[in-house]
Amino acid sequence: MLQIEKAKKGVVSREVRKVSKSEGLEPRDVAKNVSEGKVVILANRKRKNVVPLGVGGGLRTKVNANIGTSIERASIKEEIKKLKVALEAGADTVMDLSTGGDIDRVRKEILNSCSIPVGTVPIYQAVIDAAKRRKPISGMCRDEIFSVIEKHVQDGVDFITVHCGVTFNTVERLKKENRIAKVVSRGGAFLVEWMMSRNEENPLYEHFDRLLDIARTNDVVLSLGDGMRPGSVADSTDRPQIQELILLGELAKRARDAGVQVMIEGPGHIPLHEIQANVMLEKTLCDGAPFYVLGPVVTDAAPGYDHIVAAIGGATAAACGADFLGYDTCSEHLRLPMIEDVREGVIVARIAAHSADIVKGVKGSIERDIAISKMRQRRKWKEQIKLAIDPLKAGKLRSESKAGSHDVCTMCGKYCSMKRVENLFIEK
Amino acid sequence: MLQIEKAKKGVVSREVRKVSKSEGLEPRDVAKNVSEGKVVILANRKRKNVVPLGVGGGLRTKVNANIGTSIERASIKEEIKKLKVALEAGADTVMDLSTGGDIDRVRKEILNSCSIPVGTVPIYQAVIDAAKRRKPISGMCRDEIFSVIEKHVQDGVDFITVHCGVTFNTVERLKKENRIAKVVSRGGAFLVEWMMSRNEENPLYEHFDRLLDIARTNDVVLSLGDGMRPGSVADSTDRPQIQELILLGELAKRARDAGVQVMIEGPGHIPLHEIQANVMLEKTLCDGAPFYVLGPVVTDAAPGYDHIVAAIGGATAAACGADFLGYDTCSEHLRLPMIEDVREGVIVARIAAHSADIVKGVKGSIERDIAISKMRQRRKWKEQIKLAIDPLKAGKLRSESKAGSHDVCTMCGKYCSMKRVENLFIEK
Repeated sequence: MLQIEKAKKGVVSREVRKVSKSEGLEPRDVAKNVSEGKVVILANRKRKNVVPLGVGGGLRTKVNANIGTSIERASIKEEIKKLKVALEAGADTVMDLSTGGDIDRVRKEILNSCSIPVGTVPIYQAVIDAAKRRKPISGMCRDEIFSVIEKHVQDGVDFITVHCGVTFNTVERLKKENRIAKVVSRGGAFLVEWMMSRNEENPLYEHFDRLLDIARTNDVVLSLGDGMRPGSVADSTDRPQIQELILLGELAKRARDAGVQVMIEGPGHIPLHEIQANVMLEKTLCDGAPFYVLGPVVTDAAPGYDHIVAAIGGATAAACGADFLGYDTCSEHLRLPMIEDVREGVIVARIAAHSADIVKGVKGSIERDIAISKMRQRRKWKEQIKLAIDPLKAGKLRSESKAGSHDVCTMCGKYCSMKRVENLFIEK
Repeated sequence: MLQIEKAKKGVVSREVRKVSKSEGLEPRDVAKNVSEGKVVILANRKRKNVVPLGVGGGLRTKVNANIGTSIERASIKEEIKKLKVALEAGADTVMDLSTGGDIDRVRKEILNSCSIPVGTVPIYQAVIDAAKRRKPISGMCRDEIFSVIEKHVQDGVDFITVHCGVTFNTVERLKKENRIAKVVSRGGAFLVEWMMSRNEENPLYEHFDRLLDIARTNDVVLSLGDGMRPGSVADSTDRPQIQELILLGELAKRARDAGVQVMIEGPGHIPLHEIQANVMLEKTLCDGAPFYVLGPVVTDAAPGYDHIVAAIGGATAAACGADFLGYDTCSEHLRLPMIEDVREGVIVARIAAHSADIVKGVKGSIERDIAISKMRQRRKWKEQIKLAIDPLKAGKLRSESKAGSHDVCTMCGKYCSMKRVENLFIEK
């Protein structure tokens, strides 16, 4: 039985139990959310080494790190290093977005080298495989696309991005829209090119039931991709974007009815004041499906700092109810991320997620801030650093600049406000 | 005549004209806001080299960089380097928070070495000067405090932080509050210590008119300090904090009536969902006075990344109407910032300010994003990097990882979505 089917029957699965335990929640409550599609459990049934992860309502906000080769830079060794760095930094999931070198091997090595859920975008490999057969994108046939999806699902991938909402309907709206950047989703662009050159409807939409059948075999979560996501804050929340979201909402319903778990991928470039409405729209149009936002990036003007730009947007989105943050790195819009970019990207996204979890009232969130603040007031440095989201960096910065007295820092020295007022008030 | 007095008489001052020009606004509109205290003009009348800067409603969100020696680390050379770095990174103002070495000399060198407005917190020097006379904080007399303030104003400092709202009234409320961190404002802590040990009311409150007289001499802007600001998100928006804000609102009114420009300093550590109400409260309780927020820091749990934590809070606060962002650096809560920390701190705060200016509809903000996005769509890398908030870092990251083809990057190579769909749509 699939997760949704079990949950609908009131059965608490082993995976739901594990997720509930790690979140500190009642298994029955989590199962209810799974039955309603408000929580998804990432755990490919065939993948033995995966620790099931819950994403959605009531749960801790999760963070994904994108890794993977490109045709310009294709070293498996480097990508496995990125994976290790992402794991050390505390990523909840990774997506293998490889498009270069031996794609099958990268995916399998990543799946074998970690126990967190792994996602992919199968259409990437379908396009690369076609190119290896000297075929242009338009030369791919429908079966070739589906067979790559099947391969990923059989390999143990826990969630796959499928751009099912890129349809004639949305592309027509896109044509009428005077966007600065027409399509910035790579998968979306491949499908638009395929559809327009062949004058055929998107097979992931037209044959959605076939996709559902594949997903059902291993209880793989579909991440319904936002091929129409805006790529500039000036393009945000336009008709093609919202049209696609409506279609994704309909497809999400069909998927759940078939027992297939879905989440909805979200933008992208959105100015700060449009984020709340975007989250609300996703939650209403898609009946509470988990929202997996890519950023959002709240300004286009800061290449080199998109990890921070995405943290601003991500914290806001998650505080409004988004469930899953796709990190950006400082390399976004400039290059394939380097190993060191991955670490900082994950940490910064985790800070955004944690800041939002305080708002959401997620168990253990404000408690962590209280604990670290108590240690800060008492100038217990070791304990403070241990409780930091990144103890390594906090410890390094402090050790580089030691104060004369052990219980203060070089900012204020003996004029430390916390130290000075300590004796004026009776502390509990 | 003072700025407020001129503006009230409908006179557009030279300073208002300069500010209006740099903001692209009508001088009459800016003057009206000055007359109502919604905009302040930072420009000490005695300081010849200062370029007047406007802070407040309708204007671009400004960014302040804190520099200055500490008793633990007191190198004038290092602080002048920090100033240079802050200027290069685009800080709108700096505050000299020196507490170590020759404080008078640091201040004068900073004032001479830049043309942006400079702020100080005179109570710091008053305390240090007392210590040099072997007096404890409680040994300072009222006149000693006021004479340091006078010195700073005469030296040409453009704005000074004065913690006038730390009163018996607020301290009584603080005693009743079970805060994790009682007082984290250094100036606030000094005054609390002075008041409690002498059992005397805060002279900056009790003799506020004397302060106004000093400010009037050079049309210096008072930044009414938030001595009661929370130092943990768990302490946020409590009774002492809001009590102080009420008092600051009353004092702001008295100041404006006396022709003295004021802004209100704001917290501090606030969780994301409390920021909007905090900005609204300041704007209502203080009759629209410019709001100068310190962060806000939206989680206590990320020492080493407080520049980013403050960017999340700062972008949110400014999008809600805050006017002026006090940066944090990665060193916050750990040490006196190093030179390199200053640069990143300023850039990140500017990203937060810009993201909010898009929301505020500040002239030139969304236009910048549109311009860079157009260059991104066309893969015009030079132009894109030139338009970036930090062209240096963006250029460096790109140059370290060159793609085979000049018009794409190593992320997607020839599978660049922007490049692929370009020919599918008729671009204008």
